[in-house]
Amino acid sequence: MSIEDIKNSIRNVPDFPKKGIQFKDITTAIKNPKIYREIIDLMAQEFGKKKIDYVIGIEARGFILAAALAYKLGCGFVPVRKANKLPAQVLTQKYALEYGTDSLEIHADSLEKGANVLIVDDLLATGGTALATAKLVKQLEANIAAFAFIIELKDLNGAATLEPYGKVFSLITW
Amino acid sequence: MSIEDIKNSIRNVPDFPKKGIQFKDITTAIKNPKIYREIIDLMAQEFGKKKIDYVIGIEARGFILAAALAYKLGCGFVPVRKANKLPAQVLTQKYALEYGTDSLEIHADSLEKGANVLIVDDLLATGGTALATAKLVKQLEANIAAFAFIIELKDLNGAATLEPYGKVFSLITW
Repeated sequence: MSIEDIKNSIRNVPDFPKKGIQFKDITTAIKNPKIYREIIDLMAQEFGKKKIDYVIGIEARGFILAAALAYKLGCGFVPVRKANKLPAQVLTQKYALEYGTDSLEIHADSLEKGANVLIVDDLLATGGTALATAKLVKQLEANIAAFAFIIELKDLNGAATLEPYGKVFSLITW
Repeated sequence: MSIEDIKNSIRNVPDFPKKGIQFKDITTAIKNPKIYREIIDLMAQEFGKKKIDYVIGIEARGFILAAALAYKLGCGFVPVRKANKLPAQVLTQKYALEYGTDSLEIHADSLEKGANVLIVDDLLATGGTALATAKLVKQLEANIAAFAFIIELKDLNGAATLEPYGKVFSLITW
């Protein structure tokens, strides 16, 4: 299986969630057991030799990849969630949307100081949510080993936003 | 490691999301690599000999378990999501909340007729969301091999609601 096979299994949905957006739908890729396995194995191959304590998944699609990757790498899984979803004490980080702001949260006791974390989401666009996640990780004084995505939309230049915080790995660029 | 160790790693958060609810917080369990691995391996052991084509994760915490389990079992992963999150054509199923209703969606082309699916979530309470998921699966004419949860709150009797649709497996009962 090649990266091209993975790329071809991702569905483009025009005008979702709104007119003009070409939505990259990974559900058609991950429902295929061989492609799903290959995506996780290629990511695990990239990070298997690094010391990683926790894989952080960004709600909600990030959970799908981060959870399987944490299992494969033998790491713990830590969720970063939308506001008011995590039950215990949290740190909150706002990030900009096209209009207004939204926020992400992490449990205040989820990462020990100095822990090495991998931040995972399905897609890197402008990098707003991954940047907010990186700021939460830094507030907890943990180290960012890398950011990992299935898809990177190169034109939006999100990697430049994230690189001051950690290396960016993308399986597929678009 | 025993089931008791897993149970002890789950945090009880009183009065979340509202007064009187004792919220079972799995984040303290799944951040521990050994406990996370054991949870997934015990579930995989239960279902490894059954013919399962897809593991369905219910948004959002269900994604965490379903994704790792799909990887481990060599199955495809199919998400069931809150309304307006899936980009392509969907089927929608309403379910009752304490006040009002909410709805879940599945992609209309996500399951072939006759496919065998495992429906996964973190916790079985009244069974409302798992039942809505089962109805979506049935509309697509797929078979429910089983429902799997980490935690079952026995007093709420959700298993009785689900058993007409498929066998219920829970790692821990409370």
